[in-house]
Amino acid sequence: MSTTFNPPTRVLMGPGPSDAHPRVLQAMARPLIGHLDPEFIRLMDEVKQMIQDTLYTSNHLTFVVSAPGSAGMETCLVNLLEPGDECIICINGVFGTRMADIASRCGATVHKIETEWGKITEPDQVRAALKVCPKPKLLALVHAETSTGALQPIREISDLVHEAGSLLVVDAVTSYGGVRLHMDEWGIDALYSGSQKCLSAPPGLSPVSFSPAAVKALENRKTKVQSWFLDLTMVKNYWEGSRRAYHHTAPVSAIYALHEALALVIEEGIEHRWDRHHEVHLLLKGQLESLGFRYLVEEDYRLPNLNSVFLPEGVDEAVLRQRLLHEYNIEVGGGLGAFAGKIWRIGLMGESCTPNHVHMLTGALRALLP
Amino acid sequence: MSTTFNPPTRVLMGPGPSDAHPRVLQAMARPLIGHLDPEFIRLMDEVKQMIQDTLYTSNHLTFVVSAPGSAGMETCLVNLLEPGDECIICINGVFGTRMADIASRCGATVHKIETEWGKITEPDQVRAALKVCPKPKLLALVHAETSTGALQPIREISDLVHEAGSLLVVDAVTSYGGVRLHMDEWGIDALYSGSQKCLSAPPGLSPVSFSPAAVKALENRKTKVQSWFLDLTMVKNYWEGSRRAYHHTAPVSAIYALHEALALVIEEGIEHRWDRHHEVHLLLKGQLESLGFRYLVEEDYRLPNLNSVFLPEGVDEAVLRQRLLHEYNIEVGGGLGAFAGKIWRIGLMGESCTPNHVHMLTGALRALLP
Repeated sequence: MSTTFNPPTRVLMGPGPSDAHPRVLQAMARPLIGHLDPEFIRLMDEVKQMIQDTLYTSNHLTFVVSAPGSAGMETCLVNLLEPGDECIICINGVFGTRMADIASRCGATVHKIETEWGKITEPDQVRAALKVCPKPKLLALVHAETSTGALQPIREISDLVHEAGSLLVVDAVTSYGGVRLHMDEWGIDALYSGSQKCLSAPPGLSPVSFSPAAVKALENRKTKVQSWFLDLTMVKNYWEGSRRAYHHTAPVSAIYALHEALALVIEEGIEHRWDRHHEVHLLLKGQLESLGFRYLVEEDYRLPNLNSVFLPEGVDEAVLRQRLLHEYNIEVGGGLGAFAGKIWRIGLMGESCTPNHVHMLTGALRALLP
Repeated sequence: MSTTFNPPTRVLMGPGPSDAHPRVLQAMARPLIGHLDPEFIRLMDEVKQMIQDTLYTSNHLTFVVSAPGSAGMETCLVNLLEPGDECIICINGVFGTRMADIASRCGATVHKIETEWGKITEPDQVRAALKVCPKPKLLALVHAETSTGALQPIREISDLVHEAGSLLVVDAVTSYGGVRLHMDEWGIDALYSGSQKCLSAPPGLSPVSFSPAAVKALENRKTKVQSWFLDLTMVKNYWEGSRRAYHHTAPVSAIYALHEALALVIEEGIEHRWDRHHEVHLLLKGQLESLGFRYLVEEDYRLPNLNSVFLPEGVDEAVLRQRLLHEYNIEVGGGLGAFAGKIWRIGLMGESCTPNHVHMLTGALRALLP
């Protein structure tokens, strides 16, 4: 029992975590320093700058939530919503559903735009929702729906949201680092992501950024944020300003890893990284289709980094997935929610997005499929 | 900017994080596996078992919150309190104050038992509070108040709380692994701790345990838990049962580290570990007093692992603390809240609790003090 755990050497091609670069793994083995050490404050500043650069934002309030992406989602919603507010949530998968759940726990009235899973929300649906609720506090949508593999276009909806005087909240958990994303140019007011997808850091952290308009909404709240841990009126004093105030103890080693992962993103170049995800996706797509897999999402709105596919006729997905894991050490994801047991979700994220990964997976599939 | 961060080699003798054992640091450099991998589920089971063993509890609902100790605090309170509930919070420092803040954000009516910082809450104060509020949903107290160094006796208060038919919630962030703690025997219903204190794992995780009575209170809630991320009605399906349901993505590498840290605790033996903390504390105490430091907390209620001391007359604490850090790479903590600028908080926690640490610190102080 109380002995060292030696994990198997997996090839991570599920919906995250993705494989981590050896430099990122080694970063975590560095000695600990204090969470208020001047050198740690300097590290936080560098992490903030690298997130700003790779999200294409100049938002001052750009930081990292000391918990996974779901806590980043909750951070955005609990800080921007309070009892009595109205909001519009676009739902086309598990994560939109989760946003609506959290928004209602904030005491907000939630207007849902529900779309068939695997499809995207159309601007006309937003126009219709804005007739029912003309001035919501915010509209939230999922840029890359990890449960379906759909890539949501943002710009036209962003214009509609801002014409209504509302804030645009975007889930970029799976998109950040893997597909084109321009926070400021696209008018995104609050964005959260996760460390373990296309950034290829270990799971456990959520990069978050708030626009000046979102900060103003935060400052104009009438009530206290219902979560103390995620209350940005306090957290921000730890991440910015000349005098850093203790709020909670930051996960020091995880921040080392995220710093190293972001350094790798910048060394590659974010635009090159987007291109790489697209090219490797095309390679995978060709091979999967030749094996009889069929994509769930139509081509125009298909995520390159999360390939959601129906299996060839007559194949038991669970059995095949188990064999991939046990015989080849390759992890792919099963379906979530409405798609449980029906699709696979194959991740090509960050370090897991290489031709070698495609060849390992499709080689194993060729051997395993009848 | 985008280059590797090389932390200085600090000696961590503040209020946490403490030094990590090389085995714990190396554990984080192990390859990632998925958060639903059968091997990761097995690891979670072992972590749970080791926490049960070292907390002396058989609580089925024993798990790890994927965020720091403050989130563990919030987990206990948001799951046990709902709007309209009454509770009693014992306050004798920063962390009792924080509990009262969180409890009020839950919509509960908070009855505060306020005690001078550095002192402990007396059973008679609890008796008096129970006259004002005879049947609170819970009473919460801090076992080891990290802001003052006071060790709170629990058993007599526990009896009073249970006679009132209420639940006892205990902050064991700084006590777990460093001082005697028997969760079940002492009648503690909900307990949270932190990974980075006397367990000497990196910061970022919070072990939590709920008694059957606390689970019953959770099941009898009339309203949804206000936090989705911390909602145990869902989180518990990830940590227990035969079919593990995805809730959020667990911080895989951090759990590797906590597992290794708990293995080290068990190899040493929890009772031996308590004894070690006491003995090293006595060594430090003798030397500090001979240098003119004076303890804040009276001897009977003094934490061995968090030594809060007034500095010798005429010494500028901030200047001396800076010199210790910059010239000797030794971190000690400054005062918090009412004691900011007035005391030091010297941690002897886990791997940082050795005679060598005492000698390094007191040797440096002898060289630096006028």
